[in-house]
Amino acid sequence: MSAGYWMAGKTSETATFELFVRRLPPNRDFLVVCGLSQAIEYLTGLKFLDREIAYLKGLPQFEKAPSAFWDYLAGFRFTGDVSAVPEGTVMFAGEPLLTLRAPLIEAQIPETYLLATIGFQTVIASKAARILKAAAGRDVVEFGCRRAHAPEAGCLAGRAAFLAGCVGTSNVAAGMQFAVPVFGTAAHSWVLSFENEAEAFRRLQDLLGERTVQLIDTYDTVEGARQAAAMGQPLWGVRLDSGDLLGLSREVRRILDEAGMTAVKIMATNDLDETTIAALVEQGAPIDVFGVGTSLATSFDAPALSAVYKLVELEAGGQTRYASKHSEGKRTLPGAKQVFRFADRDVVGLQTEALPAGAERLLKQVIVGGEAIVDEKNIRRIQEYARQQIADYGKPGRQVELSASLSALAASH
Amino acid sequence: MSAGYWMAGKTSETATFELFVRRLPPNRDFLVVCGLSQAIEYLTGLKFLDREIAYLKGLPQFEKAPSAFWDYLAGFRFTGDVSAVPEGTVMFAGEPLLTLRAPLIEAQIPETYLLATIGFQTVIASKAARILKAAAGRDVVEFGCRRAHAPEAGCLAGRAAFLAGCVGTSNVAAGMQFAVPVFGTAAHSWVLSFENEAEAFRRLQDLLGERTVQLIDTYDTVEGARQAAAMGQPLWGVRLDSGDLLGLSREVRRILDEAGMTAVKIMATNDLDETTIAALVEQGAPIDVFGVGTSLATSFDAPALSAVYKLVELEAGGQTRYASKHSEGKRTLPGAKQVFRFADRDVVGLQTEALPAGAERLLKQVIVGGEAIVDEKNIRRIQEYARQQIADYGKPGRQVELSASLSALAASH
Repeated sequence: MSAGYWMAGKTSETATFELFVRRLPPNRDFLVVCGLSQAIEYLTGLKFLDREIAYLKGLPQFEKAPSAFWDYLAGFRFTGDVSAVPEGTVMFAGEPLLTLRAPLIEAQIPETYLLATIGFQTVIASKAARILKAAAGRDVVEFGCRRAHAPEAGCLAGRAAFLAGCVGTSNVAAGMQFAVPVFGTAAHSWVLSFENEAEAFRRLQDLLGERTVQLIDTYDTVEGARQAAAMGQPLWGVRLDSGDLLGLSREVRRILDEAGMTAVKIMATNDLDETTIAALVEQGAPIDVFGVGTSLATSFDAPALSAVYKLVELEAGGQTRYASKHSEGKRTLPGAKQVFRFADRDVVGLQTEALPAGAERLLKQVIVGGEAIVDEKNIRRIQEYARQQIADYGKPGRQVELSASLSALAASH
Repeated sequence: MSAGYWMAGKTSETATFELFVRRLPPNRDFLVVCGLSQAIEYLTGLKFLDREIAYLKGLPQFEKAPSAFWDYLAGFRFTGDVSAVPEGTVMFAGEPLLTLRAPLIEAQIPETYLLATIGFQTVIASKAARILKAAAGRDVVEFGCRRAHAPEAGCLAGRAAFLAGCVGTSNVAAGMQFAVPVFGTAAHSWVLSFENEAEAFRRLQDLLGERTVQLIDTYDTVEGARQAAAMGQPLWGVRLDSGDLLGLSREVRRILDEAGMTAVKIMATNDLDETTIAALVEQGAPIDVFGVGTSLATSFDAPALSAVYKLVELEAGGQTRYASKHSEGKRTLPGAKQVFRFADRDVVGLQTEALPAGAERLLKQVIVGGEAIVDEKNIRRIQEYARQQIADYGKPGRQVELSASLSALAASH
């Protein structure tokens, strides 16, 4: 498309695109937006390497692309403007999460990356919010890297889960890259590699001291709990990873308490999701921490959002043309937009509209003329913002309206 | 765990781990194994950078790790042996896809990466096989990068989908990195960016010539088809992306045929999966190519496999100890294994067993002493092997048995 725009002489036109989610999945009441920081890094660092251009040149699709186009790509930089909602913002279907205004080619090229990085992290953060709600105040740790969609996804899932309120991740790369707190426990192979459970437990204590979490179900959970109690301190907790977590957690709690280890925590894992966690919490299972893997790191019940990136305005020769597609069931609304948030509802309007009384603008400038002016890297600050957003707006059925100006523009296109 | 093994003096023990899938998801009859090439690259290049070691050293979990352990990590290389089934092999639940024998720490460290890279690509290749079966010989192109779980997953999904039999991907990075054929069509923004559909279509022909695929549903599919027919050649095909694909494809076919464009193809997209494709094929929709995005690149109905990596043997002081966990519902079988494939069934046995008459060994050595001895990079060769595997073994209900030796070993542990 970029080569075609170049050949069609569309290099001086300025396009505005917006990124939004068409519909929420059946089991989601809201989105927790995430991934903006990666989007900003991508846009401000975007360029084409010589070997990339050489590969593209060799594709049959580009046989007719003129050499001036390759010179253009070699010097390509993103010079546009981006507005976006801060990471951690609670948003709803149809609301733009990001708008991008740039020369047409610069605006087109980032489409796939922006959708993949913001779409994916928003999928995970939104799933994490559901799981955290089910956990009702108990800690949740993201444990899913091994089931994530390749290593990068595992790392970004650890970040997104933390931003939405998890206490940390088992993914050390996410810890290193994003300063997410890392947690972990030994695996069954640890226990199996020692002659017996007692030795495995003692050796873990040697390394981890008061951070020790003993995995007690390798042979028999109840016996494992007795063994962990017999080994005594230092011990932060024990982990259950199989069987009837409700019954076993009660029995293990009793064994620990009878040994005077009332402060020792119980962590549970084993293909947990918001449904199983809610049931355990409701039944009063004495579980202090949930480690959630597959269901969280893949958003198993809804692994993708209907996120799209659509052209809404095109400026050429001093004139603005509004764009909207009319495809059946997939109609889009024209015009560069803003979301006005009131206490009780959101109004999607035009960027040019005055701020209505009692509302705030959710989309804020983050890149101006290709330069990042905001890129929040303090993940604890984002997490606190997300916590407040979820508390205030993370409820089903929030009303999202169109402003009168936007409705009028849509009706005329 | 590695630091703990080091502190426990377990540096001269040799471990054998195996990677397998516990259960097939409800909608999968078999797996198409994929991801080995990335696993080999990872293992043969694995090392710890200074900044990585510095990060780990700073974690509270490692307060008690001795400085000799950090020296060990700084010089860490993978020196072990790996056997695996070739990429494209059709496999079933409970069968080892890969076995790894190495000093215990070297065998433990790759667990997460191996599961994430082999697990994910196997998820996608197995989903692709289902979609291709539904397409019943019609071409399928992988179109899902924008909904994939971050960019790396999009790229690897393009690779895995091709290996399982798709004709290509829209992901240019997968094309460049893995030589997967790349396909693409213009987006609605292309059409919207021009004054009218006719100009948009003509400009695409200017660039793509006989490779042109016109997206005809931006305003009205039937009008779009008439417009594409009026523009004439060069034209490879048209794409439908909304509405009733059965009815529209018939109407569009009629319009093209009446214009004498019987060779012009019809491509369909729009949240397709194996169910919608099977219905279209069964009803005789004149669709030549399916572009499949979200459902393929995320394996939407089953986005993860129960892939695990388990310790099965430990050699220390000249003695071999067999390992198996007994956790409820998650029991594992001890011993380094081999899969013997007969025409009518698979037998999971021990690596030490003689090859039974009429069987072949599925696990083959790929890394010896830390050096890759096999790393098939010719993706067309892998695709052809996968095609044959799916034709021969890609059916439900294949019998997987345990050999007498393995059963006896399991009974005694």
